[in-house]
Amino acid sequence: MGMAGNTFGKLFRVTTAGVSHGPGYLCIIDGCPAGLELSVEDLLPDLRRRRPGQSLLTTQRDEADIPEIWSGVFEGRTDGTPIGLLFRNADQRSTDYSDIREKYRPGHADYTFDAKYGFRDYRGGGRSSARETVCRVAAGAIAKKLLVRAGIRVVGYVKQVGPVVADIPDPTVITLEHVEATPVRCPIPETAQQMIALIDMVRKDRDSIGGICELVATGVPPGLGEPVFDKLKADLGKAMLSLPAVLGFEYGAGFAVATARGSANNDVFVPAATPRATSGVNLQTETNRHGGMLGGISSGMPIVCRVAIKPTSSIPRAQRTVTRTGEPTEILVKGRHDPCLLPRFVPMGEAMMALVLIDHLLRAKVSRL
Amino acid sequence: MGMAGNTFGKLFRVTTAGVSHGPGYLCIIDGCPAGLELSVEDLLPDLRRRRPGQSLLTTQRDEADIPEIWSGVFEGRTDGTPIGLLFRNADQRSTDYSDIREKYRPGHADYTFDAKYGFRDYRGGGRSSARETVCRVAAGAIAKKLLVRAGIRVVGYVKQVGPVVADIPDPTVITLEHVEATPVRCPIPETAQQMIALIDMVRKDRDSIGGICELVATGVPPGLGEPVFDKLKADLGKAMLSLPAVLGFEYGAGFAVATARGSANNDVFVPAATPRATSGVNLQTETNRHGGMLGGISSGMPIVCRVAIKPTSSIPRAQRTVTRTGEPTEILVKGRHDPCLLPRFVPMGEAMMALVLIDHLLRAKVSRL
Amino acid sequence: MGMAGNTFGKLFRVTTAGVSHGPGYLCIIDGCPAGLELSVEDLLPDLRRRRPGQSLLTTQRDEADIPEIWSGVFEGRTDGTPIGLLFRNADQRSTDYSDIREKYRPGHADYTFDAKYGFRDYRGGGRSSARETVCRVAAGAIAKKLLVRAGIRVVGYVKQVGPVVADIPDPTVITLEHVEATPVRCPIPETAQQMIALIDMVRKDRDSIGGICELVATGVPPGLGEPVFDKLKADLGKAMLSLPAVLGFEYGAGFAVATARGSANNDVFVPAATPRATSGVNLQTETNRHGGMLGGISSGMPIVCRVAIKPTSSIPRAQRTVTRTGEPTEILVKGRHDPCLLPRFVPMGEAMMALVLIDHLLRAKVSRL
Amino acid sequence: MGMAGNTFGKLFRVTTAGVSHGPGYLCIIDGCPAGLELSVEDLLPDLRRRRPGQSLLTTQRDEADIPEIWSGVFEGRTDGTPIGLLFRNADQRSTDYSDIREKYRPGHADYTFDAKYGFRDYRGGGRSSARETVCRVAAGAIAKKLLVRAGIRVVGYVKQVGPVVADIPDPTVITLEHVEATPVRCPIPETAQQMIALIDMVRKDRDSIGGICELVATGVPPGLGEPVFDKLKADLGKAMLSLPAVLGFEYGAGFAVATARGSANNDVFVPAATPRATSGVNLQTETNRHGGMLGGISSGMPIVCRVAIKPTSSIPRAQRTVTRTGEPTEILVKGRHDPCLLPRFVPMGEAMMALVLIDHLLRAKVSRL
Repeated sequence: MGMAGNTFGKLFRVTTAGVSHGPGYLCIIDGCPAGLELSVEDLLPDLRRRRPGQSLLTTQRDEADIPEIWSGVFEGRTDGTPIGLLFRNADQRSTDYSDIREKYRPGHADYTFDAKYGFRDYRGGGRSSARETVCRVAAGAIAKKLLVRAGIRVVGYVKQVGPVVADIPDPTVITLEHVEATPVRCPIPETAQQMIALIDMVRKDRDSIGGICELVATGVPPGLGEPVFDKLKADLGKAMLSLPAVLGFEYGAGFAVATARGSANNDVFVPAATPRATSGVNLQTETNRHGGMLGGISSGMPIVCRVAIKPTSSIPRAQRTVTRTGEPTEILVKGRHDPCLLPRFVPMGEAMMALVLIDHLLRAKVSRL
Repeated sequence: MGMAGNTFGKLFRVTTAGVSHGPGYLCIIDGCPAGLELSVEDLLPDLRRRRPGQSLLTTQRDEADIPEIWSGVFEGRTDGTPIGLLFRNADQRSTDYSDIREKYRPGHADYTFDAKYGFRDYRGGGRSSARETVCRVAAGAIAKKLLVRAGIRVVGYVKQVGPVVADIPDPTVITLEHVEATPVRCPIPETAQQMIALIDMVRKDRDSIGGICELVATGVPPGLGEPVFDKLKADLGKAMLSLPAVLGFEYGAGFAVATARGSANNDVFVPAATPRATSGVNLQTETNRHGGMLGGISSGMPIVCRVAIKPTSSIPRAQRTVTRTGEPTEILVKGRHDPCLLPRFVPMGEAMMALVLIDHLLRAKVSRL
Repeated sequence: MGMAGNTFGKLFRVTTAGVSHGPGYLCIIDGCPAGLELSVEDLLPDLRRRRPGQSLLTTQRDEADIPEIWSGVFEGRTDGTPIGLLFRNADQRSTDYSDIREKYRPGHADYTFDAKYGFRDYRGGGRSSARETVCRVAAGAIAKKLLVRAGIRVVGYVKQVGPVVADIPDPTVITLEHVEATPVRCPIPETAQQMIALIDMVRKDRDSIGGICELVATGVPPGLGEPVFDKLKADLGKAMLSLPAVLGFEYGAGFAVATARGSANNDVFVPAATPRATSGVNLQTETNRHGGMLGGISSGMPIVCRVAIKPTSSIPRAQRTVTRTGEPTEILVKGRHDPCLLPRFVPMGEAMMALVLIDHLLRAKVSRL
Repeated sequence: MGMAGNTFGKLFRVTTAGVSHGPGYLCIIDGCPAGLELSVEDLLPDLRRRRPGQSLLTTQRDEADIPEIWSGVFEGRTDGTPIGLLFRNADQRSTDYSDIREKYRPGHADYTFDAKYGFRDYRGGGRSSARETVCRVAAGAIAKKLLVRAGIRVVGYVKQVGPVVADIPDPTVITLEHVEATPVRCPIPETAQQMIALIDMVRKDRDSIGGICELVATGVPPGLGEPVFDKLKADLGKAMLSLPAVLGFEYGAGFAVATARGSANNDVFVPAATPRATSGVNLQTETNRHGGMLGGISSGMPIVCRVAIKPTSSIPRAQRTVTRTGEPTEILVKGRHDPCLLPRFVPMGEAMMALVLIDHLLRAKVSRL
């Protein structure tokens, strides 16, 4: 799987290379079944959602984010060979980043990278830049297309920004249209306006703000996930925590289980309201505090999880830090940075959820005679 | 890595087999460096901490939990060959579980297992039983021994049971002795008593209660973890979420970042208070809201994370459910079950943390010339 | 996949632990689909074929070689959980091996093991003992059972012992019955007698002799194998070369291609003699110099390969060597050893071939929509 | 490791994508330690040796074969992040290949690819083209550079073309200069001339001819390789057999062991002629029929192996075949093809040997305390 951790997935595998201020990114997707209709156009919608500069809420960095497909697609269909994608880095204003060569930016990987390798590419985030997620979002778009064929849909949205929380009692009714209705990607219009106002205020205050993204997968058949180490919840957790700025992951009732009693927390089984296509017994749970996963295996109920995202570390304020020689100093991080990462996180979170689900959907093909 | 997910780790790999009501468990640990002094005695302390029947707080099931080492150790030292462990299942009261053959227990993997494979070992939890963690705790004990050689210590404790929360401003001062001072494994004596009283009350009420476990690793050098998919936080998250009953994972400030501002959340770098042995610049952060990991790589600060654990699903009360044919019914789950999983979770969580850290410590050996 | 290399396969994975003079061997088979009827009886025939002491041609060491199935089978069928097997070491005459503690046996791994790990289990071959193949043969028996369901049969036989070569123009007509008709496992009776006579002579001469095993798989559908690194021929080669005493592997025309012209070596395509069940065009090749694999992918023609096996290194003669301190000395290797490894190699080679084929058969399930 | 088999190696991992008639190839090398001086110039010599059109002995196809390094190198040194390479396909004469859309070329993967995926990229070899080895040779050049730092050198040469065999009693004296002295890459000048004459004759005869490549690694310390499945010989065998046109692999005495007696085949241990730097006992073997590997682990003696390569399947003659609909027909394969693959195979074989050795050299770093 790669000791250096540049590959994700077992059957549907994504390997990436590239840094934010080099020529660009390479992405190899291995294990996509042959026969899927695919073109660059399939990748663009999610890439646009991830793209910086969509609104004042996000960084103004200008990147084309249009991939080149170098292999894996022949006459409009995947042909079983690895899908090779290229993303060129268009807007390399390296001079913006000259200061960070000598000073460690608080909240960034500058110091830990130096500690790990002895030196680092100091032009921007280097390998730790969130620009790498352009590869994940493209791979996720392919995964989503495969999932839709199986009746599975993945939707994410901004659940919370600072203290502003969206009240969404039934996550399964949220559609992509609801999410994309506002630039903040919160599907409740009034709450979205409050979030936008808050982010705008924070931005003017030369600060940043955190939040929570909720992700939902519907149509997931029961039986996905492995019972021991590769529980579906474990793979989803790893997927989300592999994204930059994520400090927490929970599903279903999440951290609220800490204060719950078993008698109240257990979701009782009842006959299914409407017959389901999946083989086996026709049942569902009355509630969904288990977030669609029991024993790490999907139950057929919607999979619901939440991800905590920290406020952007790069803020346009002087911050205390030390130099590479250990001297106390101050740093003013230049460049354009999102005051709130949440809106652009949504497609990244969806992509990672889709990558986990397609991997387990493929595994399910070999788990029974 | 195993599509069916019975292997954990890349360089230090644990593969397990076995079910709760078969002859026992097999555990193969591959990749342990040769030359480590090792005997069964090294594994027993943590196995005893995981063992059921330690107190009224935990299930009274009687299991020996003493492993046999079949290979990998020669003349008292690991010899580079895979360590083969055997755990026999001593106490198999299969009759206790006859009812669950036909009825799905709420909160358990019974239904999802059937959905996945078409049938299941209905004697107890089968492969989904927490009994499997006996292998992980043994493997974790070996990992801990390797970590101690590198100056790394892993300690876990019960941070919260229901509404009772332990106030531990500095997690790094907690020692194993503090943790083991009470059967509930909360290192603050007064809080421990409140937790014990609460669990006792819940047990008498034929119910169960959830909680939060906090895990701390000290002495971790900066530079462990990979920058992209195998971030240290991601591997820790997967490790914890691969354990039964875990619904959430967070590190450092965790979900609290949702309401935080960047200016307050960033941990500024300052010169280190005391020189550190690690190569490179001598620094630390003033605070530790980043939980010891920046960009997914250890910063040299203590690694602190928390895990949310649900109330035991098996409670001695009748619960509504359906049969394997979809008929509504009730089930009264028999057997002896912990009213609160937290005390026995502590060694499991420590083991998984140790397995992640040793894997990345070994990887660090090959990441530089 | 395990850096220390104790796991074989990707989708159908075999992990082993154990040494020749410890308590026994553990074998975990992960990825066997659920639903296969399986019992210990299914494993015994091939284990008996591998077993020492079958005849004067093979070592007289007495081992039960009857596995215990600890998990993975429930009510007579595989249940999707890992299959855990145990083999106890019955006959541990450690005293036979005391001399090799200080002296390196020529042709054995004694010295290389010391060089690798700094010390070794000097009781017999330790981890390098061919006794480990008991796990592979058991796993191979399960693989064979799965293959038979898909119409694929694997047969091996002794093609050559010393200068005695069996003339088998059409390998596909050889059956298990032909092979098992003589203890030397050469399906041509007269040649078998010559081989037996030769081995007997060599044994009386306190020497050993090498040979060639030919392995054939029929009923393999076209399309198994991956086009680049995991070519079917590459995985077969690795499988065979991972067995003890193997010094060469070839398939189809093999090393004879060195002197061949393209015009004579190419196998031309012709319409199939009899319609085949496989989808797609109905063709075959007129000849089979390609050994059933083109571009590393099965062509639907029989897969035919050959393996060169050295004469047993342990011979009942004094041999020159050095001690662990580098002093010249002589060693007389005690114990009972096969004068010719070929007859017992046959089930080992078949097992490895079956493991490769089942792995690729499972992969084929996920290679197309 | 990738079910679809587009990744090679465990610690030093090479993943490739691309086809012969698309835009080009992507190659991601993951796990190269940080700190190695590296530039495009380091890759060019071996790429030139692999390059078509070097002489009349090889195809005249014109390709630049100059890679672009997109990541993994910063300020002249590897930085621990994955090395991303790009190779553009310069010379795409697709029209040369139009005929093969409907007719299966004998000896090629056309039919097996169709059988596997249901369709294929019919422009040239597609994913099965030997053009993919451009990635391997580049990765191998990096591996060689790492090996040289450890005192290990890899040299390959043409041992045999048709019946012309080079007599090289001591492979360890052959240097790169000897090999490159003639375009056929046979280090014995007179034999080289005979081979050249033979290839020229075969070419004029519109035919092709096979041969044998011998590969040697010197300076390999004892202790590389894993004792069970990942034996060094097994990984070398897989590496070589993953290359196009390879039908056989042997090391040391190879297939000649079939007729050997143990008393003659065993290499006896003797004190080392000259002290060696490696730790442990100072010994060597008197002969090297074991090809530098015992029990699958390097012995410190030179590693010597041989690879059998078939005559080029594409010959400028009409050959019988069938169409995609199963109709008998003839095909005249157009394009320019090497009449003998051996000269260009040498750098490919060296690259694969280097990739295996660096992988095991890195593993050795974590096998002991």
